[in-house]
Amino acid sequence: MSYTIDTLFDDLPGANGFHGKDILKVAQFSRDELTYIMALGERMREVVESSGGLDLLKHRLMAALFYEPSTRTSASFIAAMERLGGSVIPITQGVQFSSVSKGETLGDTVRTLAQYADAIVLRHPEIGSAAEAAHYAPVPVLNAGDGAGEHPTQALLDLFTIQQELGQIDGLTVAMVGDLRFGRTVHSLTQLLLNYDVGFRFVSPEILRMPLAIANQVRDHGAEMRETYDVHEVIEEADVLYVTRVQKERFSDLAQYEEVKGYYIVDPELLTKAKEKMVVMHPLPRVGEILEAVDDDPRAAYFRQVRNGLYIRMALLAAVLR
Amino acid sequence: MSYTIDTLFDDLPGANGFHGKDILKVAQFSRDELTYIMALGERMREVVESSGGLDLLKHRLMAALFYEPSTRTSASFIAAMERLGGSVIPITQGVQFSSVSKGETLGDTVRTLAQYADAIVLRHPEIGSAAEAAHYAPVPVLNAGDGAGEHPTQALLDLFTIQQELGQIDGLTVAMVGDLRFGRTVHSLTQLLLNYDVGFRFVSPEILRMPLAIANQVRDHGAEMRETYDVHEVIEEADVLYVTRVQKERFSDLAQYEEVKGYYIVDPELLTKAKEKMVVMHPLPRVGEILEAVDDDPRAAYFRQVRNGLYIRMALLAAVLR
Amino acid sequence: MSYTIDTLFDDLPGANGFHGKDILKVAQFSRDELTYIMALGERMREVVESSGGLDLLKHRLMAALFYEPSTRTSASFIAAMERLGGSVIPITQGVQFSSVSKGETLGDTVRTLAQYADAIVLRHPEIGSAAEAAHYAPVPVLNAGDGAGEHPTQALLDLFTIQQELGQIDGLTVAMVGDLRFGRTVHSLTQLLLNYDVGFRFVSPEILRMPLAIANQVRDHGAEMRETYDVHEVIEEADVLYVTRVQKERFSDLAQYEEVKGYYIVDPELLTKAKEKMVVMHPLPRVGEILEAVDDDPRAAYFRQVRNGLYIRMALLAAVLR
Repeated sequence: MSYTIDTLFDDLPGANGFHGKDILKVAQFSRDELTYIMALGERMREVVESSGGLDLLKHRLMAALFYEPSTRTSASFIAAMERLGGSVIPITQGVQFSSVSKGETLGDTVRTLAQYADAIVLRHPEIGSAAEAAHYAPVPVLNAGDGAGEHPTQALLDLFTIQQELGQIDGLTVAMVGDLRFGRTVHSLTQLLLNYDVGFRFVSPEILRMPLAIANQVRDHGAEMRETYDVHEVIEEADVLYVTRVQKERFSDLAQYEEVKGYYIVDPELLTKAKEKMVVMHPLPRVGEILEAVDDDPRAAYFRQVRNGLYIRMALLAAVLR
Repeated sequence: MSYTIDTLFDDLPGANGFHGKDILKVAQFSRDELTYIMALGERMREVVESSGGLDLLKHRLMAALFYEPSTRTSASFIAAMERLGGSVIPITQGVQFSSVSKGETLGDTVRTLAQYADAIVLRHPEIGSAAEAAHYAPVPVLNAGDGAGEHPTQALLDLFTIQQELGQIDGLTVAMVGDLRFGRTVHSLTQLLLNYDVGFRFVSPEILRMPLAIANQVRDHGAEMRETYDVHEVIEEADVLYVTRVQKERFSDLAQYEEVKGYYIVDPELLTKAKEKMVVMHPLPRVGEILEAVDDDPRAAYFRQVRNGLYIRMALLAAVLR
Repeated sequence: MSYTIDTLFDDLPGANGFHGKDILKVAQFSRDELTYIMALGERMREVVESSGGLDLLKHRLMAALFYEPSTRTSASFIAAMERLGGSVIPITQGVQFSSVSKGETLGDTVRTLAQYADAIVLRHPEIGSAAEAAHYAPVPVLNAGDGAGEHPTQALLDLFTIQQELGQIDGLTVAMVGDLRFGRTVHSLTQLLLNYDVGFRFVSPEILRMPLAIANQVRDHGAEMRETYDVHEVIEEADVLYVTRVQKERFSDLAQYEEVKGYYIVDPELLTKAKEKMVVMHPLPRVGEILEAVDDDPRAAYFRQVRNGLYIRMALLAAVLR
């Protein structure tokens, strides 16, 4: 199946709802909208696999405004825009040395860039900065991470990966492993998954447990949920093993870190206990929490997950800018 | 009205004069050439508004060589080249760490880049560097600011903004407000305006008055001119209020700064005394000299002014490279 | 002669051998392959001169992953990809501040980028890093310099320049002048030239002589070779004068540096003794070892050599990605 600019959006209910919209937080999406974005992501996968890209956004410009470096995220958005036939203004370094250091507000900076570009992808270290930018910008703002706040495109690509790998989301048991306290990605993914009928397993050291606010949200939704310290206790029932890094620096008592770290490492032996059809995910970069020996296991999906980031960001840019 | 590559330059007298030329300083332009550039800028506005861009400079490359960061200017030139269908080699960071740190001359650097690109946009901290680059480069050099020297594309977009906002330039009273001593933009704009029948009002603290050389140039041209300390004295007669920042650091006596700063701040109350059809401009970034409360006033043109930078740079690149 | 996407590769023996391959080191090329790459480079020259570029690699993406800055090399690869109609993800600054600083391996970084891009151009300070990247990446890796290791595209453009300037390679006498000990470019070019019937002259200070391993390789090939301290001794017989910089810092005894430095400087007087049809080359940047007074001599080929880098990199990207 090959799509053209004319047929790309055919038969996609909700296709018009995103035009001109900002992409700021996971809570903005209804289940229907998630279905729409994922269907469009699937079509983007077909387009890239068959011909590399298309000319949907020819003569359209995306400004990539990164107040902190993020090679992975900026590369993914740039690739998405280029494969859609558009162009990019990369402002991925040194923002702090230019206008901004002269005291310009974020509002003025985005209003300026909006004179040049048709959309602004923003990475900023402060919570709420994406919403602030969207308030001022006359063009769509896509939040590429605002500090400890949100990183909605990561959560969407995570959701899309589960759908792509397992063919469904309803009915699954999703285990999240590692640093659930500070891990922005697991918070956002959990919220997205509350749109579905999913069971949760939260696996972390005591000091890195899922924040009460989110745990309560899960409980209020009536979703099945269990917390534990050891990944071995959930490995057999998990359909999804979403791994994040446990940083040594989080522990004031290093002896405690040494004691528990093995509970959160994925190696081939652990996977012998897992279902044959399950999926290991990780937002990357990893630093030892998934061994390289796991990479060739067909269940190791983290690089396909990266690829899905391309498709989902293509879908979002196309939906917002077409 | 929609233009194609074939009709874009039709009926524009002087269309061929810019091919292969450098854009180095405001003094290089005759009034006819200014008319031509602004007419082409107007067409670029129509192109961008109707279709986002065109394919005039397909397979042409512009090198953006920025020895000092300038998010705004580099973004504007990059956007201009991309909307013309061309591509960009962005060298907007770290020039100092590479070849240059190995002691390469500016002449060798631009001759090298000219082997890859069809035009070079240069930002450099030293006066005269753009002319030096143009001496060596076998391709057009566009000066994007050479220290305390020139920034001709800023002056052209300022002129274009007056034309676009008020429909004419002859007969206007232009008030320049703030730091007229160190403000490169007001010096260049003043020189461009001497091609027209314009009255000047220079509003600044004593220590930041317009340099004698430029004030004398204005007088020698027989243009009407008046200097004052307080913007309130000119607000009623001004057709253009061109505001720049009065930097605290310029004052050795901070008490003096506190005393006068209110003379140079634009707020809604000030605008109640202004003509109904006038225009507030600013080269941006601003830091308090125009209050945000002014932004919604239809006379507040500074973000449209930014947008005009895109059109004027498209016009210049098209004229030089087509 | 003008080429289209359909005719570009016509009649080029060996055209299919490069598809999907990595470009890692000069030793990987057979003489037939060198002939092929140079023939394709010649066609790229014709394409650029006649129309600026072509659409061969439309919708294809090249990631430029530069762990150390190199304005010249990154600009050349970016220009090559853009003139082929493709697009670029520029990661030419700050890699060290992002994922990598979080401890990600090179293998994970390139596997990540390979999800977005169709080829990866890698510059890295460590020997062997390009081969390591190629081991992990599912897409072609092009080595743009791995520390003291290889910089194969520089060697290829050097070879191509000799061919373009003198119409042949067999039968020439090639003098390499300056720092032959640490100069990566002269090592690689020497190895490439061993595919041809070439005589070598190695001209350097004692402490900067060509490494024994390479000198022995030349001898084992039965190539004619002579070493000397003074460029004046070889200037009359040289067909190619390949100049590199003698860095003051290499000398522990500065008096010694002052004594010999004149032996390695190319000035108009030296060239009066040279053949009328010969060629002066330099990998650039230069810092005084070739005087500017030489630039207008028709034998001064170093800026044309830069240009040839564009054509050779276009040829390599086209061969690997088409």
